[in-house]
Amino acid sequence: MISFSKSDIENLPHIQKINLINSVAGYKSANLIGSKSEDGNTNLAIFSSVTHYGSSPAILGFVVRPTTVRRNTYDNLKTTGYFTINSVCEENIEDAHHTSAKYPKEISEFDKTLFEEEYRNKFYAPFVKKAPIQIGLKFLEEHHIKANGTILVLGEIVELFIDKYLLEKDLFINLSKGKIATINGLDGYTVPKNPKRFPYQRPK
Amino acid sequence: MISFSKSDIENLPHIQKINLINSVAGYKSANLIGSKSEDGNTNLAIFSSVTHYGSSPAILGFVVRPTTVRRNTYDNLKTTGYFTINSVCEENIEDAHHTSAKYPKEISEFDKTLFEEEYRNKFYAPFVKKAPIQIGLKFLEEHHIKANGTILVLGEIVELFIDKYLLEKDLFINLSKGKIATINGLDGYTVPKNPKRFPYQRPK
Repeated sequence: MISFSKSDIENLPHIQKINLINSVAGYKSANLIGSKSEDGNTNLAIFSSVTHYGSSPAILGFVVRPTTVRRNTYDNLKTTGYFTINSVCEENIEDAHHTSAKYPKEISEFDKTLFEEEYRNKFYAPFVKKAPIQIGLKFLEEHHIKANGTILVLGEIVELFIDKYLLEKDLFINLSKGKIATINGLDGYTVPKNPKRFPYQRPK
Repeated sequence: MISFSKSDIENLPHIQKINLINSVAGYKSANLIGSKSEDGNTNLAIFSSVTHYGSSPAILGFVVRPTTVRRNTYDNLKTTGYFTINSVCEENIEDAHHTSAKYPKEISEFDKTLFEEEYRNKFYAPFVKKAPIQIGLKFLEEHHIKANGTILVLGEIVELFIDKYLLEKDLFINLSKGKIATINGLDGYTVPKNPKRFPYQRPK
């Protein structure tokens, strides 16, 4: 095995360091976060940090770096209170990855990709049309990470739309039936197949 | 599409609710967190919430519910300051999932599964022997989520061991070469193949 100490990691060239540390924790979720400013500019950005925080109430969280383009997402959801999370599928991985480009806030990623805005139930933020999972969230709370200035943003699910054929009887969502992607590192995408489910575990 | 409002979600039977909300955000990382109490009891528990928080310094976070068995992990890392994160591979998914059973803290999951403890460089917490990625972390900070009492735990990577054949030249870790698993929902596991990598994006 190759070993890296804390100082080995610190001393790596920038690109190698971000490739390595973005890959170590395993596969990540691939989601497009949609938002709209108070004056109507829409924004769409890919995030690999969306994480489950609780089912009752239904809470999801994601991480923003204040210094990146994704700051538009943060500004919009803070001023308007709402944002959407939409799954990324095999056929639009390339466009999804392109939303990581640093566009000025006046330019909408919806105009620079094939993604189309969709509005449902008078929800303020745009959903991504044809995404098999569309989640509408209300901003809940934020936590500032002292160690590096990143921000954990938490939202509560208030609207949820799912393609019928992904749902199993017990409401497990079979992500593979929607060809939903997962992210490896900063820039690797793959579409997993057929999950195997295991029963609830008790001590043996 | 099937739609769920906030109250539709709240009113679902418990099992359906946790299946649905644990699946909506897409694929999750599959990791075993190893820890050891001050009096030497080891603990190993599966987590699907390990998330990248930064590369410089190298920070990972995960979510604990104070009411579950995984509380042992939290107690150990808080009292000793150290824990490990180890990847889950195809051949040991079943044992990894079994660590979710609620064992009393005196019983080590290392004794109830085929996983073996491995100690490296005098690091206090046990690594999982043969895991292709083994990460040693020092506790950094914690954030208490007001909405539901869960806790975000952050640690800094201080030791890192990776199977050589997973690493590409630019230090991208090709997870598929280690047959590393990802989690769908609460209990679905799948092993993705060959990631496709995309270049760094600029406005077009």
